[in-house]
Amino acid sequence: MITRLRAAALGTIAIALVGTAATAADLKPEEQIQTRQAGYRFMSWNMGKIKANLEGDYNQQQVQAAADAIAGIANSGMGALYGPGTDQDIGDVKTRVKPELFTDQEAVGKVAVAFIEAANNMAETAALGDKAEVKTAFGELGESCKGCHDKFRKD
Amino acid sequence: MITRLRAAALGTIAIALVGTAATAADLKPEEQIQTRQAGYRFMSWNMGKIKANLEGDYNQQQVQAAADAIAGIANSGMGALYGPGTDQDIGDVKTRVKPELFTDQEAVGKVAVAFIEAANNMAETAALGDKAEVKTAFGELGESCKGCHDKFRKD
Repeated sequence: MITRLRAAALGTIAIALVGTAATAADLKPEEQIQTRQAGYRFMSWNMGKIKANLEGDYNQQQVQAAADAIAGIANSGMGALYGPGTDQDIGDVKTRVKPELFTDQEAVGKVAVAFIEAANNMAETAALGDKAEVKTAFGELGESCKGCHDKFRKD
Repeated sequence: MITRLRAAALGTIAIALVGTAATAADLKPEEQIQTRQAGYRFMSWNMGKIKANLEGDYNQQQVQAAADAIAGIANSGMGALYGPGTDQDIGDVKTRVKPELFTDQEAVGKVAVAFIEAANNMAETAALGDKAEVKTAFGELGESCKGCHDKFRKD
């Protein structure tokens, strides 16, 4: 997985940024918003599990499973879920995304690349099982999340 | 990844069924429902991408990324999201789960094992890149989803 994840990173980042016809064509804008939020919610749960393991009894298998879930979601091309019409609330479906995400491609690319690399590094580190290294990788992953939130998410 | 996923399957299934203190302790029942639904929604999006690839132009990288996301979520111990109090609607948070899921442990174990094994097989097959084999693995994965829906999800 380690090699594959690294090797796939660039291509996946391209998908994350560009999207493809197959990834979003069947989803309405409100479904795209709900699906990207589902991804973030599920990653957040798994971040919480890793945090709990670092602060308490460390279960390597659970941390690795959580890190793999995060990496799998991070590499799935979520950029396709930011299609036209998903820049604002749609009825009851609310979004906190800032308009800049849809205009500042260069900055979006930077935070997306940083996030995917940090998620892959987290999965690779979790597989090796050293708690101290996992703590570092987890901190870096959290920073990469924050990097996007600070720039592209409303409070 | 192939070996690791296979090796981890049994342990992960144990987590899926039993859960652990760290996996759900911090989530309220309504958050557990929302988080498990987030996982299913995100997997559904990725199932749709694989289906679109099988029916149209086949992009191996996209299929593999989608399959990895599904496997990552499937192996993350979602059983912990079926904690006490999550067997019925909580305010606006609705659930279609049937009561039997919380009582028939043996049947739950069977569908959980079938699902995780099918998700891991899908990820392994997608990595190999043969479209015909992916089609078979995808069909089996869909059947394993349906196996649980038929038994434990209200219409």
